[in-house]
Amino acid sequence: MYNLLKGKKGIIFGALDDKSMAWKVAEHAHAEGAKFTLSNTQVAIRYGTLDELAEKCNAEIIPADATSIEDIENVIKKSMEILGGKVDFILHSIGMSINVRKKRTYDDIDYGFMMKTLDISAISFHKVIKTAYQLDAMNEWGSIVGLSYIAAQRTLFRYNDMADAKAMLESIARSFGYIYGRDKKVRINTISQSPTLTTAGKGVKGIGDLLDFTERMSPLGNATADELAQYCITLFSDLTRKVTMQNLFHDGGFSNMGMSERAMHQYSKGIDD
Amino acid sequence: MYNLLKGKKGIIFGALDDKSMAWKVAEHAHAEGAKFTLSNTQVAIRYGTLDELAEKCNAEIIPADATSIEDIENVIKKSMEILGGKVDFILHSIGMSINVRKKRTYDDIDYGFMMKTLDISAISFHKVIKTAYQLDAMNEWGSIVGLSYIAAQRTLFRYNDMADAKAMLESIARSFGYIYGRDKKVRINTISQSPTLTTAGKGVKGIGDLLDFTERMSPLGNATADELAQYCITLFSDLTRKVTMQNLFHDGGFSNMGMSERAMHQYSKGIDD
Amino acid sequence: MYNLLKGKKGIIFGALDDKSMAWKVAEHAHAEGAKFTLSNTQVAIRYGTLDELAEKCNAEIIPADATSIEDIENVIKKSMEILGGKVDFILHSIGMSINVRKKRTYDDIDYGFMMKTLDISAISFHKVIKTAYQLDAMNEWGSIVGLSYIAAQRTLFRYNDMADAKAMLESIARSFGYIYGRDKKVRINTISQSPTLTTAGKGVKGIGDLLDFTERMSPLGNATADELAQYCITLFSDLTRKVTMQNLFHDGGFSNMGMSERAMHQYSKGIDD
Amino acid sequence: MYNLLKGKKGIIFGALDDKSMAWKVAEHAHAEGAKFTLSNTQVAIRYGTLDELAEKCNAEIIPADATSIEDIENVIKKSMEILGGKVDFILHSIGMSINVRKKRTYDDIDYGFMMKTLDISAISFHKVIKTAYQLDAMNEWGSIVGLSYIAAQRTLFRYNDMADAKAMLESIARSFGYIYGRDKKVRINTISQSPTLTTAGKGVKGIGDLLDFTERMSPLGNATADELAQYCITLFSDLTRKVTMQNLFHDGGFSNMGMSERAMHQYSKGIDD
Repeated sequence: MYNLLKGKKGIIFGALDDKSMAWKVAEHAHAEGAKFTLSNTQVAIRYGTLDELAEKCNAEIIPADATSIEDIENVIKKSMEILGGKVDFILHSIGMSINVRKKRTYDDIDYGFMMKTLDISAISFHKVIKTAYQLDAMNEWGSIVGLSYIAAQRTLFRYNDMADAKAMLESIARSFGYIYGRDKKVRINTISQSPTLTTAGKGVKGIGDLLDFTERMSPLGNATADELAQYCITLFSDLTRKVTMQNLFHDGGFSNMGMSERAMHQYSKGIDD
Repeated sequence: MYNLLKGKKGIIFGALDDKSMAWKVAEHAHAEGAKFTLSNTQVAIRYGTLDELAEKCNAEIIPADATSIEDIENVIKKSMEILGGKVDFILHSIGMSINVRKKRTYDDIDYGFMMKTLDISAISFHKVIKTAYQLDAMNEWGSIVGLSYIAAQRTLFRYNDMADAKAMLESIARSFGYIYGRDKKVRINTISQSPTLTTAGKGVKGIGDLLDFTERMSPLGNATADELAQYCITLFSDLTRKVTMQNLFHDGGFSNMGMSERAMHQYSKGIDD
Repeated sequence: MYNLLKGKKGIIFGALDDKSMAWKVAEHAHAEGAKFTLSNTQVAIRYGTLDELAEKCNAEIIPADATSIEDIENVIKKSMEILGGKVDFILHSIGMSINVRKKRTYDDIDYGFMMKTLDISAISFHKVIKTAYQLDAMNEWGSIVGLSYIAAQRTLFRYNDMADAKAMLESIARSFGYIYGRDKKVRINTISQSPTLTTAGKGVKGIGDLLDFTERMSPLGNATADELAQYCITLFSDLTRKVTMQNLFHDGGFSNMGMSERAMHQYSKGIDD
Repeated sequence: MYNLLKGKKGIIFGALDDKSMAWKVAEHAHAEGAKFTLSNTQVAIRYGTLDELAEKCNAEIIPADATSIEDIENVIKKSMEILGGKVDFILHSIGMSINVRKKRTYDDIDYGFMMKTLDISAISFHKVIKTAYQLDAMNEWGSIVGLSYIAAQRTLFRYNDMADAKAMLESIARSFGYIYGRDKKVRINTISQSPTLTTAGKGVKGIGDLLDFTERMSPLGNATADELAQYCITLFSDLTRKVTMQNLFHDGGFSNMGMSERAMHQYSKGIDD
């Protein structure tokens, strides 16, 4: 409600339903005055409720498989047509591991699935950026954001090959951030968000206990999808023009906690029994 | 110009003249609707042009030696009186090394001076936070920012004991960030800014060549004091409520660069001679 | 010459000729009393001089394409036969980017080549570890080492998709380090080595000037392949049993330098012209 | 038992009794063929059992307050006399917080005590290094090690101002590591060790539960003082000559764990009640 994105145009990848982080980003971007298009796979569009968001935000939906260069080109070209020119921001909120879905543990991974995990969750980020770069589709001082998770730095059991994909995603932000910054003043960052109960996240076994732990560890508690969206707005705005190639923790302080009194207390209860 | 800080109250430590980072932060905070007080030492107030800033921003000046708990208490109490209640943000832009000034190299440091460096440049941050905490002087979801430099992570010749002070400053942000976040939802972060030509910085020998290097290394170039101020505003705003205990690089990408083509080219010119 | 690896058995992947880091590791491992097998691709064996090393170290060569599970299984099973039991250490010194070779820049990468880069340079590490794990081929307190480079953390122009591959390699060390440590007490680490003039490295354009820069930046100068081998021995030895999931910089201090006097001096010469 | 330190001379600061990390380092250094002196404060010498260690290792004790330049000079000069020349390694295992002892919490710290914490736990490291440097008391390729803790990076409740001291200690290793490496090829590193039940550590309230947590989080379990000593030997040896300015985690993998299955299981037991 500050008009922080007034006059700005963007593309938001990855909203499924109103639990999605991309959904919240779209709502906040709309409220801040931005115009944008929405993209997700055909399957996700059918399965989710993206139409509802599109209507609310007066945004068009352009279906795409984010591993397909042709589809991405179509999204970017159409977006420029619809929005009337180059874009100022892109959100990449895309990730999926078939190994996780099929319960293939990391020590018994299927390498075909792993390639798919990397393609969907990390290389698609490169593909989106490269396509925008080659089509010269972004205005100077534009901003690209990908969503990451602390598993890129620290191992969490069951997070599986998504950890490697997130490490690669953050690396792509650095590698392409150098080139796109140098050539077109476009910045590229990732936000490392608290574990968040999206529709995808809900399916993960034991996610409730992990959220309890991170909530008690973080002095400000877990960051919600709504808060993530607000933070994202600052990164799309003109106020953060010299922040690039960074992985930014948005997690209530979790990443820099070794042990909190609250979490230790809860842990000790299990010991005392 | 977004009313991002409308209704917010703050205290800004460390503005000297219109080259100061704190000066720019004050100007932008004023433009964004904040009310605040200004503080610096008596000497700095005489030497600089703080009156001019105070008038421009309609702010009162409260002199203080930031190593003195009494002085800090006075600043915080008076600020609450003047501003009519608890504050929402504090900027700490304070740092000085007598070893640097007196040209005592790091291998021949004076330990009395080093204690002074730590007291002025790092412990003063703790003192300001502790005093605000004990006086319960900050509103929930308030924001405290200290200014740091990459010397906290990587050694730069001649930066001397300021490197150790900055490492400690960032540690204090984490240590107290946990407590203040847990108890009062106040967040504490440091911004690690590009080398900046402030009045203090100008005196550093060879600073010009270092700036040339960091400019060519950073895909977006060095961040200016003006840009730092804009970034700071986002951290004082309500849009970054779950970011705490972080050291945030605001440096055009420098921190994550190993070598750029431009900097390598310049470096090679020296070799080819 | 300390008998640090007396009685230990291992597998060394990736030696080509006497400039190779893996070659030096083999020589030092031999001198320290280890028995091991050597592996590389058929092409590399023909192109290089691995026979010479094998003779010197009394080691058998087992050809393998490190992207092939069947080949890796063969290497590990044969190694156990030849060496008479489980192995204690594995060195993974494998990496290659067709994008770099074909001069496809990072902003115009071929994604088929990128998949190949990842498969050869990162996923092969997972495949080697997984195969050893599933065959239960390592003794307790065994040690696995992969070779990395600072490009995993900081962007260097022209390093291209190898940066992303190295980021993923280090992630795999963490992800599998957790599992293999928990289940079998095997540790997994990566060494981030100074840029080194191997036969592969020599082909990189401008490598000479980069080495000049890193030499002057590092207080102890660049680490050589010989020194890398010595360091590697300590990680294979019983003296580092509780070091795991780490990326260890072996670079004369480069990684924690912001600017040295020597490098700045050289850089300034280019400016002064 | 490898003669890794044969012919090497050193100084070991901070052994109190057979629970001390410095004590274990002394035992292992002795076993590896080193000659060295031992130093601690007069009080510690009376309170502990250093005589026993001295006898075992055939080492002389030189009492010193590590905050006193005169005392440190005396230790280094006497050590050179006793050992017959320059030294090759120094261990700094010194740390203490009066705020912790007096139960002054971090938000109500006594600043005089804090200065004492910094002087004893961090600046003493600088003083030892500076004195050795100025007396030219170390051989080329010598090695200096300080002991640190992950609190330097991540906040642990009750660790108090020791966190800031450890952050500063690690910074000093970098700052002086640059100078001593450049000028005399001496390397300086810190080891970040698992929480360890030394006589000092035992007094910390709740340390048992924290150790249970870190034990379950770390795939290899907590590192013991004995294992720390072995690791330390590798850093004193000639096999790690190009490792400098680093903080090296020796913690069974803890530092790179986000959550292990074992720790989560234990934590969940507390929730389920």
